[in-house]
Amino acid sequence: MTATLELLLVGFGHVARRFVTLLDEQRGTLSRKYGLTIRIVGVATRHGRLILPTGLEPSAVTDRFTHFLATVPAHREMRTTPELIADVAKRRPATRDGRLVVVETTTLDIKEGQPAIDHVRAALSNGAHVVTVNKGPAAFAYHTLDKAAEKAGRRFLFEGAVMDGVPIFNLVRETLPAVTILGFRGVVNTTTNYIITEMELGEAFEEALRAMQVAGIAEADPSLDVDGWDAAAKTAALANVLLEGRITPQTVEREGIGASTAVRAREARTRKRRLKLVARAARVRGGVQAGVALEELDESDVLANLEGQQNALVLHTDLLGEIAIVQRGSGLTQTAYALLSDLLTIGTGVTGRTLDGRSRS
Amino acid sequence: MTATLELLLVGFGHVARRFVTLLDEQRGTLSRKYGLTIRIVGVATRHGRLILPTGLEPSAVTDRFTHFLATVPAHREMRTTPELIADVAKRRPATRDGRLVVVETTTLDIKEGQPAIDHVRAALSNGAHVVTVNKGPAAFAYHTLDKAAEKAGRRFLFEGAVMDGVPIFNLVRETLPAVTILGFRGVVNTTTNYIITEMELGEAFEEALRAMQVAGIAEADPSLDVDGWDAAAKTAALANVLLEGRITPQTVEREGIGASTAVRAREARTRKRRLKLVARAARVRGGVQAGVALEELDESDVLANLEGQQNALVLHTDLLGEIAIVQRGSGLTQTAYALLSDLLTIGTGVTGRTLDGRSRS
Repeated sequence: MTATLELLLVGFGHVARRFVTLLDEQRGTLSRKYGLTIRIVGVATRHGRLILPTGLEPSAVTDRFTHFLATVPAHREMRTTPELIADVAKRRPATRDGRLVVVETTTLDIKEGQPAIDHVRAALSNGAHVVTVNKGPAAFAYHTLDKAAEKAGRRFLFEGAVMDGVPIFNLVRETLPAVTILGFRGVVNTTTNYIITEMELGEAFEEALRAMQVAGIAEADPSLDVDGWDAAAKTAALANVLLEGRITPQTVEREGIGASTAVRAREARTRKRRLKLVARAARVRGGVQAGVALEELDESDVLANLEGQQNALVLHTDLLGEIAIVQRGSGLTQTAYALLSDLLTIGTGVTGRTLDGRSRS
Repeated sequence: MTATLELLLVGFGHVARRFVTLLDEQRGTLSRKYGLTIRIVGVATRHGRLILPTGLEPSAVTDRFTHFLATVPAHREMRTTPELIADVAKRRPATRDGRLVVVETTTLDIKEGQPAIDHVRAALSNGAHVVTVNKGPAAFAYHTLDKAAEKAGRRFLFEGAVMDGVPIFNLVRETLPAVTILGFRGVVNTTTNYIITEMELGEAFEEALRAMQVAGIAEADPSLDVDGWDAAAKTAALANVLLEGRITPQTVEREGIGASTAVRAREARTRKRRLKLVARAARVRGGVQAGVALEELDESDVLANLEGQQNALVLHTDLLGEIAIVQRGSGLTQTAYALLSDLLTIGTGVTGRTLDGRSRS
C-alpha cells in the first residue's frame, strides 16, 4: 500500500529547513521502500503563516515561504498557533485517515516547555500526529500528551529531544520489549561537554562558550546550557518516558558549569580522571530520583572519553545489565533525521509496512 | 487481540533452558502487555525427541524432558531433524496462522554453519517462524534464508547471533529507517577480549583461556575463539545483513591470538594504547571488505576500554555519522533474552500490537 503524508510545519528554522531538504534527498527511498509521498500543506512561524491548500513538494517549500514573507504584507493574524493547527486539521481530509502530521520545531522555553506543549496538544486533539525535536512536551507533560495520543489513535514522537537522531526512545520502545529500564546516566548536553573539554586543554570558559555560540550549537540564552537547564529537561524527558517518572525539569536537582569549573576539570585530569556534567535518574520507591551534576569519572568510563560534541547514555536494565549508546557526531542532519525517522514510524503505520520496507504479514 | 504461540525447541542446552525459565518469569508481562500465551509443542536434541501434542507450559518443560530421557528407552529415530521440523509444522494447525515458532539453539559448527542452516530452512519452507542464537545461518546463508522467509510470509530472526540480547540487527531494522550503514568495527568475541585484558595484567594465555572455559563462555573447541573464527562468523553475519554483503566466515580475513600476543598487549599498554581483536567491515565497490585483526587503539577509543566480557560495535552511517552500542554485561540471561525479544517481534505481528504493547492503529 502507498500513501501521501501531509505535513504542517510549525516552526521553520535551521532544523526544519534541513528536514525538508532531507525529505527531498530521501524522496526515492521514501517512495520505493516505504510507498510514501510527502506534501507540505502549511508553514507557521512567528513571522508569517503560509497555508498551501494543494500541498507543495518539500523541495519547493523554502523558496516559496521566503517569497511569501518578502511579498505578502504583514497583517494581523487573529488566530493563535494552536487555533491554526486545529483549523488546518479540521479542513484536510487527510486528517481522518491519519495522514496529517504536525512537525513541531519552534523555539522552546526550556523552563516552561512552551509553546511546544500547546502545539502538540492542539495537533493530537484534532486528529493529527506529531513529531517534534522539542524536549518540552516530554519533559513537562509526557503522560498527558501520551494519553491524548492514545485516545486519538495518533502518534506523539520526539526522538530528536535527546541525542538528536541517535535512537534512545525508539531503541527502548522498538528493540527492548519486556525489558525494564531501572535507571540511566549520560552526557547529554553538547555545549557544556565541549566547554569542559576545552577548559581541560587550557581554553577559557568564555572563549569556549563563544565558539559554541558561533557554531550555532549553544542555546541563544547561554544560561540554558551552562546552568544545566537543557540537561535537566532531557533528564526529565528520559525519566518520564523510560522510568515512568512524573517529574519536570524544575524537580531535577541541577548543577551547572562556570569559569571556576576549569580548575576542577584540570585537577581531575592530573589524577587520570575526567570531569563531566552527568545526567542521572533511577527508579526509587514511589517515583524517580533525577539529577544533573559534575562528576569525576574514571578514564575507562564510557562517558569519560566523550570529546567535544559527543554524547552518550548508559541504560541500566533488569534483563540485559548495562547498555550504552554513543553518539559520535552531531549536527543539523542528525537532528533533522530524528524527525524523518519518527515520520517513517507514522508512515509505515499508515501503509502497513515494516520499517525495513516489507509488508506486515 | 490475543494469541497462543507454539514453540518447537530444536536444541535444549543452557541457552534454551534459560529461555524457558525466562518465558516463565515473564509470563505475566507476555499475557498482560502482549496478549501472548506460550506452549511448548516439542523438544528435539541429539539425545532424544519429545513431541507434546497438547503442548506444555514453559515451566514444565525441563523436568518433563529430563524425565523423558531417563525413562523412555532410546530407539532408532529414522527422521532427520529437518524432517522432524517439517512433520511438526505440517501437523500443527498453528502453523497455518503463523503461530508456530522454531527456537533453534543447537551446537554450531562455525566453519560450516550447520546444522542450524538446515533447521532454519526446514522451518521456513514448512511455514514456521525461526528465532535462533546461532551465527551460522546469517553468516553463511543470510540472503537465501531471508528470501525463503519473505516468500513464506514468516520471520527469520537472529538477534542473539551477535552481542547476545543487545539490539544490533533490531537496532538497524527498527530504529534507523532510511539510514545506510557504510561499515562497522567492533569487539565481538568475549573470550579473546577477556584473555587479552588478563594478559595485559600479567596472566598467562593458557590460564586466562582456562578461566573462560570453566565459566562456560569459551567454545568447546578453543580454536574457534582464539583463532578468530567466532569473530569472523559474527563479522560475516553483520556484513551480510547490514552491508548487503555476500560473504562467509571463510572469506573474512582472519587473525587470532596466542601466547605471543601477551608481549604486544603489554607493550601497547606502556604506550598508553590498548591491543584489541577488532572485527571490521565496509562497503567497497562491488561488495564488502571484511576482516578480524589485532589492532592497537588509542585509549580514548570506545573499543579500547572494553574490559573482560564487554563487547561493542561502532556503526558508520551516512546520515548519523558514527553510533556505538556497548554491552557491559553478558551471560545466559542476555542470550536467552535475544530469543525472547525476537519472539515478541513475531508475537506482536500475530496480535497486531506494537512492541510497547499497544494496538496498531
